[in-house]
Amino acid sequence: MISDRKLEHLLLCTHSDVEYHKKTGFKDVELVHKALPEINKEEIDLSTSLLGKKMDAPIIITAITGGHPSSIEVNQKLAQAAGNLNIGMGLGSQRAAVENPELTSTYTVAREAAPDALLIGNIGAPQMEQALEASQMMDLDAMAIHLNPLQEAIQPEGDVDSRGYLENIKKTTEEMKIPVIAKETGAGISGNDAKLLENVGVKAIDVAGSGGTSWAAVETYRSPDKDMGELYWDWGIPTAASTVEVSQSVQIPIISSGGIRNGLEAVKALALGADAVGMALPVLKTSYLGEGALEKFFQKFMDQIKVAMFLVGASNLKQLQKTDLVIQGKTREWLTERGYNTKIYARRSSL
Amino acid sequence: MISDRKLEHLLLCTHSDVEYHKKTGFKDVELVHKALPEINKEEIDLSTSLLGKKMDAPIIITAITGGHPSSIEVNQKLAQAAGNLNIGMGLGSQRAAVENPELTSTYTVAREAAPDALLIGNIGAPQMEQALEASQMMDLDAMAIHLNPLQEAIQPEGDVDSRGYLENIKKTTEEMKIPVIAKETGAGISGNDAKLLENVGVKAIDVAGSGGTSWAAVETYRSPDKDMGELYWDWGIPTAASTVEVSQSVQIPIISSGGIRNGLEAVKALALGADAVGMALPVLKTSYLGEGALEKFFQKFMDQIKVAMFLVGASNLKQLQKTDLVIQGKTREWLTERGYNTKIYARRSSL
Amino acid sequence: MISDRKLEHLLLCTHSDVEYHKKTGFKDVELVHKALPEINKEEIDLSTSLLGKKMDAPIIITAITGGHPSSIEVNQKLAQAAGNLNIGMGLGSQRAAVENPELTSTYTVAREAAPDALLIGNIGAPQMEQALEASQMMDLDAMAIHLNPLQEAIQPEGDVDSRGYLENIKKTTEEMKIPVIAKETGAGISGNDAKLLENVGVKAIDVAGSGGTSWAAVETYRSPDKDMGELYWDWGIPTAASTVEVSQSVQIPIISSGGIRNGLEAVKALALGADAVGMALPVLKTSYLGEGALEKFFQKFMDQIKVAMFLVGASNLKQLQKTDLVIQGKTREWLTERGYNTKIYARRSSL
Amino acid sequence: MISDRKLEHLLLCTHSDVEYHKKTGFKDVELVHKALPEINKEEIDLSTSLLGKKMDAPIIITAITGGHPSSIEVNQKLAQAAGNLNIGMGLGSQRAAVENPELTSTYTVAREAAPDALLIGNIGAPQMEQALEASQMMDLDAMAIHLNPLQEAIQPEGDVDSRGYLENIKKTTEEMKIPVIAKETGAGISGNDAKLLENVGVKAIDVAGSGGTSWAAVETYRSPDKDMGELYWDWGIPTAASTVEVSQSVQIPIISSGGIRNGLEAVKALALGADAVGMALPVLKTSYLGEGALEKFFQKFMDQIKVAMFLVGASNLKQLQKTDLVIQGKTREWLTERGYNTKIYARRSSL
Ligand SMILES: Cc1cc2nc3c(=O)[nH]c(=O)nc-3n(C[C@H](O)[C@H](O)[C@H](O)COP(=O)(O)O)c2cc1C
Ligand SMILES: Cc1cc2nc3c(=O)[nH]c(=O)nc-3n(C[C@H](O)[C@H](O)[C@H](O)COP(=O)(O)O)c2cc1C
Ligand SMILES: Cc1cc2nc3c(=O)[nH]c(=O)nc-3n(C[C@H](O)[C@H](O)[C@H](O)COP(=O)(O)O)c2cc1C
Ligand SMILES: Cc1cc2nc3c(=O)[nH]c(=O)nc-3n(C[C@H](O)[C@H](O)[C@H](O)COP(=O)(O)O)c2cc1C
Repeated sequence: MISDRKLEHLLLCTHSDVEYHKKTGFKDVELVHKALPEINKEEIDLSTSLLGKKMDAPIIITAITGGHPSSIEVNQKLAQAAGNLNIGMGLGSQRAAVENPELTSTYTVAREAAPDALLIGNIGAPQMEQALEASQMMDLDAMAIHLNPLQEAIQPEGDVDSRGYLENIKKTTEEMKIPVIAKETGAGISGNDAKLLENVGVKAIDVAGSGGTSWAAVETYRSPDKDMGELYWDWGIPTAASTVEVSQSVQIPIISSGGIRNGLEAVKALALGADAVGMALPVLKTSYLGEGALEKFFQKFMDQIKVAMFLVGASNLKQLQKTDLVIQGKTREWLTERGYNTKIYARRSSL
Repeated sequence: MISDRKLEHLLLCTHSDVEYHKKTGFKDVELVHKALPEINKEEIDLSTSLLGKKMDAPIIITAITGGHPSSIEVNQKLAQAAGNLNIGMGLGSQRAAVENPELTSTYTVAREAAPDALLIGNIGAPQMEQALEASQMMDLDAMAIHLNPLQEAIQPEGDVDSRGYLENIKKTTEEMKIPVIAKETGAGISGNDAKLLENVGVKAIDVAGSGGTSWAAVETYRSPDKDMGELYWDWGIPTAASTVEVSQSVQIPIISSGGIRNGLEAVKALALGADAVGMALPVLKTSYLGEGALEKFFQKFMDQIKVAMFLVGASNLKQLQKTDLVIQGKTREWLTERGYNTKIYARRSSL
Repeated sequence: MISDRKLEHLLLCTHSDVEYHKKTGFKDVELVHKALPEINKEEIDLSTSLLGKKMDAPIIITAITGGHPSSIEVNQKLAQAAGNLNIGMGLGSQRAAVENPELTSTYTVAREAAPDALLIGNIGAPQMEQALEASQMMDLDAMAIHLNPLQEAIQPEGDVDSRGYLENIKKTTEEMKIPVIAKETGAGISGNDAKLLENVGVKAIDVAGSGGTSWAAVETYRSPDKDMGELYWDWGIPTAASTVEVSQSVQIPIISSGGIRNGLEAVKALALGADAVGMALPVLKTSYLGEGALEKFFQKFMDQIKVAMFLVGASNLKQLQKTDLVIQGKTREWLTERGYNTKIYARRSSL
Repeated sequence: MISDRKLEHLLLCTHSDVEYHKKTGFKDVELVHKALPEINKEEIDLSTSLLGKKMDAPIIITAITGGHPSSIEVNQKLAQAAGNLNIGMGLGSQRAAVENPELTSTYTVAREAAPDALLIGNIGAPQMEQALEASQMMDLDAMAIHLNPLQEAIQPEGDVDSRGYLENIKKTTEEMKIPVIAKETGAGISGNDAKLLENVGVKAIDVAGSGGTSWAAVETYRSPDKDMGELYWDWGIPTAASTVEVSQSVQIPIISSGGIRNGLEAVKALALGADAVGMALPVLKTSYLGEGALEKFFQKFMDQIKVAMFLVGASNLKQLQKTDLVIQGKTREWLTERGYNTKIYARRSSL
């Protein structure tokens, strides 16, 4: 049962260590302090617009849930917060409701709770033929196709025939009225894959790199054979590297996610070229903490973002992408070997 | 007595820490995740052919034993597994049987148990004059000449006159009907040595690099003077570096081995240019675990291989050698200093 | 109340861990030993002149206190030591006395105790309009404008409108009779910011880089929300990197400070291009140790300086800037990425 | 009293931790394994000649003692071992005997015990005017002038006027009948200093780099102020880097020493260009272990040398300098920054 698995995932992610042991790589990224910011921190403007929708901050609660009775409460809370703060929110895979329409309300509750926020639908690449129907389930601003080959490969019941996905995405982008986002779920997207996706009409990419929730980790708990999940626990392109690869490869907007846990990491991602950052696990955990917890969480997160933006002298997100940052260590090594230039960020402010 | 030493080696390797403390270097090698594999994992084809023999997977149980009564059971089990799975197997040094024909059955049991599998004979470089006779002991597909200067240098009774080996290998390749493989036993083969071996007619190279079984370690237990073995415990070219060096230097097939312990490391070796991977120590240990253990071990190993191949979008071994990988850390440093190009692997998929 | 906060800072800095966890980077800097110094250590001359004032050693007690009754004793002791040793001393921010003239004596005590030493006034960038008045509070040799955006951003009551600072510094340098120093307080100054400051008439720069006292750390103790301070605890440009950046960017004198804790680190800073080194926290702590402690502290510090100068064969500070040093590790990586040349120091002695 | 200090040094070095915490750098140097050595280990020839004297192995017991009654026994034992094995030996500083002729026999005992071995006199640079007299104290093969600015700078009674040393060495090399060696005592010699020394007529250089006995460490125990010795404990050029610097800068023979503790490190030093290796501390310690201990120590050391030489296929010391080695880590970083080429060693065997 899909919906049972959904519950299992929610519980596992909330209670067990399901995160990558290897890091996002943001520790390797150092923003260069500006002793003379020459801006007013009070006037820092985090607003942006993504896929035609205005947002008060470049933050998206990425796809988490739907399809299980318990999803209703979670999605409602997430959507209320998203609505209150005017940030983005993604639904969990809508497959359950496409296959079992009784479950539709576990998803539509989000649009009800957040009538104006950027709301993103979700369907897995193996169920791409359901994308159109899913996109019509409610008033959605975009449809995310999630790519999750790592989990599919590890879980016994996984769908491991990924042939024709690109062609299918092309068809989907053509027939769909709303823009299509391609998103990974924790193993990252390379510059090359991003280019392919852009070429078939995808309108934004959520890199969902490694360093946060690991689907190999999640499956380790669910599987009798622990070895496979443990072996692939750390598989993937670290989020910092993935963000750079994608941003140097495509023109469409980029959501950087996977292991982003505070506003400082968010600012690094944004300065590296992301148009917004996404988070799932910490948001899910916070949603259980009671009334107002999510609002407090995001408020703090935005405060943290503003501190870093102040300290590099960026009044808005566009200026942030002109500030200096240094890429060191393994992230620099990865990018250099891969042919991506790391020095272009290091002194761009004075060009 | 050679055969007593053989038993001692079996026991030591099974019960003591005989592995390198320094690593193979495969940790430095990162396969680049493909969010869009565009293949069907169920249809991944691991088959290959090596030295004219078809194999269902690019895996070889490298030389372990023979020459002691207890070798019969080990060789029989290994051969049965190799036969069942149609993978390759190497005999331990046949010197014991050449010098004492009564021991012949401790080797021939392998061919009986695996009539069709790739079966590789074995003789040490110091006994090269026995190679022809050894090659005729049964129906062998190839003859491995093993190079083991580290052990010879450390053990008191070692044969340390290695003059003329290359010339002798030349003679052996000329007079032998079956192809000759040159293999190390854990200290690795440099690109330069590989070139010399190819030039004298060797038809495949098993790099057997450092990171797995250490013959200096084994001899540390056997020797009253522990210092010498401990000092040279970590001597050698790490397997990942050795695999790259050899694959950038010769045209003949390459077996990567020495410390390969799971399918993910195997895929890295294959992606770096190896035609097959080899293992000895973990196979030996598994052989003692009872009925079916070896088959289970290799099945799991192949499953692990397929996961990585799926995640880089390779349906077969040839495609695997066109996928992207990044070489970092000490392995990159070694290769760069040695004049080998590490960047050629980093983005070759999109060329 | 400013003066209460001043006391709180003194207490916190003396009793809690308020230092960066990340290091200054001086560990990455290795002075190249000279087996043949060809100088007489007894005749090493540490004297220098800064902003027109002669000093017996290139050491400055950077801004610490003033404005609270307890500051009197501290400033008197610091000034006595500075006077006795003829080194430099900075006052803490004079804002308290500008706003409340009764507190003036907590500052002027320094000039009384050290009639001839280089004495530097201090005002924060947010209070720049008070600079002129502060500069006339006593006979000062220079006026430091301190830049402290990190603390301002972290503390709830912080002044976070930094617009126009550069323009205001320009005005201040023009109207002021004494030279203006721009100083950070622990987060460092980039080459680019240094250039901007030089262009508006600043006559010296105190880099005050990260690695020593962290104002985010200090504010962590003062704030109910510990997360913000902890997240930014290690924010900033490490002192070694900042010293190189500034020294390769401007012509005006440079004070290297932030985490300098012994004479060996001081010599590294001086060899990297600094004209003097500064210290606050260790001097403050020593000031509480009783009669003569400060003199002993600095005497030892100068002895340590002389050992390193002897071992690189430098009789004076000018020669020191021609000796060889090697920059390694993260500091090399930072500087290289930022486009600063590290090799120019490595063999300059033999040019 | 010099002779009391001599005893104190002997005791301290034997019983306390007086070694550098930072390493020689030989761990960064990897000899490239040769699977086909093509030599006979039994016939490896360690003989060499240094300063006109034949030696059976490129090993020198570097300067340790003399001048105290207890030195007699030590020097006798060392000389007997040197004589028996026909390796080199250095006397401790002869200053004590020049100033107090009664102590002469504590030195001459060495020549008596080793009539034919390479025997090297010793005088400190501060006592260079005693060099001629010292050189005539017995039949010496060479005279070492030791440079020890680190110890002189740390010890309270140190002679820290090093002006004119180079000029004095020039005079000494001219008036002396026997060749002059310049040696450090643990802080290393740079390429530049080596060049200067060669230019004034020095006939060999003992780099005595850092990584072994630290004279700052020794003085830490002797001094009431522990801080100074601790601060400079790790001062100096690591032995591996110093060996490369000197060997790429001069034509005269090089003794590599400072922290060499086994035959594998010795082979690395020799492969990097040294003509012999030197050791003091471990030899001193062994000399107390009773009859035959020194001979056993050196025998084992030479056995270790031969293993590595065998494994890189070098039959003699000249061939060793054509074998491949890889320089990694901090040693590579040091040398690259300093403008020395590390790649010339990496594949020289196949040129
Ligand atoms: C409980 C849970 C359920 C998820 N379900 C979906 C999903 O249905 N569809 C999807 O695209 N991603 C799903 N994700 C992945 C997230 O959207 C996100 O890409 C990934 O967790 C990495 O971000 P994080 O490290 O901030 O958690 C899920 C994540 C979690 C933790
Ligand atoms: C018990 C044992 C016996 C071995 N005997 C031989 C042998 O006779 N001939 C040979 O070529 N290699 C021999 N080897 C070496 C292996 O074939 C292999 O090259 C080496 O162990 C490295 O692989 P591993 O790390 O997977 O063990 C032996 C290895 C082991 C563990
Ligand atoms: C208790 C204390 C008070 C300080 N007050 C001031 C100040 O009023 N003005 C200023 O420019 N810097 C002030 N500083 C910063 C220091 O001058 C110095 O830049 C910084 O502490 C880094 O140096 P350190 O690591 O040696 O402490 C203060 C530092 C301390 C520890
Ligand atoms: C106890 C002792 C006494 C020494 N005395 C002298 C000396 O008189 N003259 C000298 O040139 N070096 C002297 N040295 C330095 C050694 O010759 C050598 O350069 C240094 O110890 C580094 O080598 P090691 O790490 O193998 O000890 C002495 C070393 C020791 C341990």
